[in-house]
Amino acid sequence: MEKKILLTDCPDAKGLIAKITNICYKHQLNIIKNDEFVDHPQGRFFMRTELEGRFNDETLLADLDDALPQGASRRLVKAGAKRVVILVTKESHCLGDILMKSYAGALDIEIAAVIGNYDTLAELCGKFDIPFHTVSHEGLERGEHERQVRQLIDGYTPDYVVLAKYMRVLTPEFVAAYPRQIINIHHSFLPAFIGARPYLQAFNRGVKIIGATAHFVTDDLDEGPIIEQDVIHVDHAFDAEAMAKAGRDVEKSVLSRALELVLCERVFVHGNKTVVFK
Amino acid sequence: MEKKILLTDCPDAKGLIAKITNICYKHQLNIIKNDEFVDHPQGRFFMRTELEGRFNDETLLADLDDALPQGASRRLVKAGAKRVVILVTKESHCLGDILMKSYAGALDIEIAAVIGNYDTLAELCGKFDIPFHTVSHEGLERGEHERQVRQLIDGYTPDYVVLAKYMRVLTPEFVAAYPRQIINIHHSFLPAFIGARPYLQAFNRGVKIIGATAHFVTDDLDEGPIIEQDVIHVDHAFDAEAMAKAGRDVEKSVLSRALELVLCERVFVHGNKTVVFK
Amino acid sequence: MEKKILLTDCPDAKGLIAKITNICYKHQLNIIKNDEFVDHPQGRFFMRTELEGRFNDETLLADLDDALPQGASRRLVKAGAKRVVILVTKESHCLGDILMKSYAGALDIEIAAVIGNYDTLAELCGKFDIPFHTVSHEGLERGEHERQVRQLIDGYTPDYVVLAKYMRVLTPEFVAAYPRQIINIHHSFLPAFIGARPYLQAFNRGVKIIGATAHFVTDDLDEGPIIEQDVIHVDHAFDAEAMAKAGRDVEKSVLSRALELVLCERVFVHGNKTVVFK
Amino acid sequence: MEKKILLTDCPDAKGLIAKITNICYKHQLNIIKNDEFVDHPQGRFFMRTELEGRFNDETLLADLDDALPQGASRRLVKAGAKRVVILVTKESHCLGDILMKSYAGALDIEIAAVIGNYDTLAELCGKFDIPFHTVSHEGLERGEHERQVRQLIDGYTPDYVVLAKYMRVLTPEFVAAYPRQIINIHHSFLPAFIGARPYLQAFNRGVKIIGATAHFVTDDLDEGPIIEQDVIHVDHAFDAEAMAKAGRDVEKSVLSRALELVLCERVFVHGNKTVVFK
Repeated sequence: MEKKILLTDCPDAKGLIAKITNICYKHQLNIIKNDEFVDHPQGRFFMRTELEGRFNDETLLADLDDALPQGASRRLVKAGAKRVVILVTKESHCLGDILMKSYAGALDIEIAAVIGNYDTLAELCGKFDIPFHTVSHEGLERGEHERQVRQLIDGYTPDYVVLAKYMRVLTPEFVAAYPRQIINIHHSFLPAFIGARPYLQAFNRGVKIIGATAHFVTDDLDEGPIIEQDVIHVDHAFDAEAMAKAGRDVEKSVLSRALELVLCERVFVHGNKTVVFK
Repeated sequence: MEKKILLTDCPDAKGLIAKITNICYKHQLNIIKNDEFVDHPQGRFFMRTELEGRFNDETLLADLDDALPQGASRRLVKAGAKRVVILVTKESHCLGDILMKSYAGALDIEIAAVIGNYDTLAELCGKFDIPFHTVSHEGLERGEHERQVRQLIDGYTPDYVVLAKYMRVLTPEFVAAYPRQIINIHHSFLPAFIGARPYLQAFNRGVKIIGATAHFVTDDLDEGPIIEQDVIHVDHAFDAEAMAKAGRDVEKSVLSRALELVLCERVFVHGNKTVVFK
Repeated sequence: MEKKILLTDCPDAKGLIAKITNICYKHQLNIIKNDEFVDHPQGRFFMRTELEGRFNDETLLADLDDALPQGASRRLVKAGAKRVVILVTKESHCLGDILMKSYAGALDIEIAAVIGNYDTLAELCGKFDIPFHTVSHEGLERGEHERQVRQLIDGYTPDYVVLAKYMRVLTPEFVAAYPRQIINIHHSFLPAFIGARPYLQAFNRGVKIIGATAHFVTDDLDEGPIIEQDVIHVDHAFDAEAMAKAGRDVEKSVLSRALELVLCERVFVHGNKTVVFK
Repeated sequence: MEKKILLTDCPDAKGLIAKITNICYKHQLNIIKNDEFVDHPQGRFFMRTELEGRFNDETLLADLDDALPQGASRRLVKAGAKRVVILVTKESHCLGDILMKSYAGALDIEIAAVIGNYDTLAELCGKFDIPFHTVSHEGLERGEHERQVRQLIDGYTPDYVVLAKYMRVLTPEFVAAYPRQIINIHHSFLPAFIGARPYLQAFNRGVKIIGATAHFVTDDLDEGPIIEQDVIHVDHAFDAEAMAKAGRDVEKSVLSRALELVLCERVFVHGNKTVVFK
């Protein structure tokens, strides 16, 4: 008995749930959990099906291809750990939470390696026997720096690249190399306070709530599909530094939750948005 | 084109989603939204299906009865306003929120009448042209008081009876007369602070959070299936009265949200729990 | 025995708390509750003191003026209800919540009148015997429309003007006429989604949280000092209309809480920010 | 220039703020931040004063003793790291969060040692060079086990003892040895689900919210003064295990926040409650 997840994303049509679940039934697969969503204005259908049984992937997918409308995308994914490479700069809280969760078996993740543009977090990774590579950006052109980072990443063939407070803007070339595979944590409640120093912006604006946003990275800075957001209340007694300190706890928990959702294949990307089956 | 909701609650079995959605497909009904949940330990399947099309209720239900396993319960409900009778005592905040939401068209509700054991809220109901009946409990035996209240309720044949801060304990006879139809708001985060004066209990215990719980009423006081809960943070500066005041906003919003869920047929009762499709 | 609130806002200096509380002590006034805050970077001191006793306002303020540094502002305010005029357009949820809270005695407010640029909410105000004035903007120049509204407002000499979903942008002249006296509810988590149709903006951006912001109105649209903010979680299943519906509950509770804070004299305005003693 | 915190806890009386701040002023100490609270029903006054300057502790405290009413308690504490011993069993999430925060310099803490009744977490402590002691309870009487644990604790003379998911009930003797010094994290929203297996209790009750509570330990199990609480929403799809998993994130953040409050001397214990100046 195996466990796999079927992910269907196609133009909406009558009878799709019936067609897909019929095929599963015919293949004697048990549906453990099923979630669907129809984006009516866009006419798009999304379905995530957790299946259990003996799989003949080839015939199952062929049957689905026969049944689904044109323009359908379907994936059959083995449940279980995904492989990631994590990019960092100097701050340890997000990386630390992922390391601790991975250590405790609380995330279905295989941390292949961590890459930093500083060596600040090498020691922490060493404690957990995770390979760490320093690729300093100093004295390098952006393109050359990214080339070196990409070479390292590609050596690990990761499913996802996680930016755990990686404080450098990526070029379109870098982003294009990992489509829908790069997950970033932004230290504000997007779209408020796009760009640099969001806590200082938040302090200057006098907001009563600060937040964090985990999103897929696209070409537009801080504009990619949002996976997860959360906030905490602050007040006049928080200066920018106190906001940043309080914000770190939100950042780490938002990134970890987003990762868990992505690693469990609960997130569809649809244009500049996500469909997230929690 | 009509809109109806199909509610299926039955022992779990292979292929249920396929069977039900096939029948809908065969009847040329469009599935607007579908939610399922399998309670694996209990082996129970729940599905809520929003359908659009031309309905032949009789043949549709007959087809379902043929397809579903023994012990299945299925209902086909017309979408739209449900009729309620509201029971109150003296506090206006929960009733007032329902009245305002109903006035604004924000709840699919028809408030048939309000019954109070005091006449305190008669004036408020009068403003909104809602019939108000006072049935004082003074000088009456509990059984006789409830008999009079039930007679009034039954005259309105409501779908639901809402206890909007009705400060009297109901007898098993009363509860049995409206199975899974009575919704109560309890002014604590159940199961903390069961019984009387929960804010005083909360104050005495020095909690940092207070809450409210909307639940179906069963024979056991404050023990019925929970529909919705929410909380707010408090601190040492809140005395019992300040907690009660802050709590009223949570009570009213929790009751209104629970009502909205119930009125839209999003809530299944399952033993002493609920399955709520949000 | 009277109850008053002393509000001190001055350049920071050593010994300010001692000086002020000494004066209160000397006047035999009892401090029921005291809150201070020092904005160290700006060198500004804020203190709110709830006092009980027999007040000689003149000598008390004279003593304070002797003791406080230059550039100090101090006010001694009688505790109790404040008078407001509420401006509305068509939506009833914010106005309704204030009316209900006022009716229940849950807000220290005297609603002098409601002014609408449509007559949609006249009926609702009538239910609560609140004077309602319609000043249609149709066919009027903005300046002339505002002149008529201001004339009505000024006839009531309110302490505050509340914009309870008043969907018109105010001119600098209007704003200048009521400095730090106009409170607005904006239907987004500012500074995200400034301007028109924030829920549509939020839907298009695919955010997972929506919010509301109560703020004092200044010349810059949606840029005034923030008093209170709150949020709720949404997901992909919310279209712009569903966001707007869910958002209404946040809007009304944020505005009511902001009003309560302002009416109890818990809010200092300081540049473009607030100091709020909860 | 030094930084110290003055903590005053005494019967309420007129002029206390004036008296205490006068003395600080006379000693030429600068008040960085001041918080007071009067528990009027109990007639008790609490004040926390962050001071900066040159301290003569002896004369300052003598002056305070002259000024304060009988039954006053006052402490003058040097700001900075506190020393703790942490007790654990097998679960790593709370310990891991404290270790990571300590590593990142985000908590003013010196982790003197960790003691476990299993050796499960020895490896994790080793990574961070924290002494770990295993004191197995197997084959030992409760009293003897605690004697050995206490001997180890006392060797480190800690300011606080932190129970980071230490799954053993302490005897009154143990508790009495560290009055107001033992901080526990309980994996429920107290007083709901006191005792063992709270997530199973929560699952069986069908609650829609689960929480965690950090509190000082007293003789009564799960009944000590509450420092901090928080909650998360769950639904019917969470079984007891999923609740436990989701709950771990709340547990760790509630314990870390409670620790931060205690370590910064922001928490007064007052009977069975706390006064917490955030």
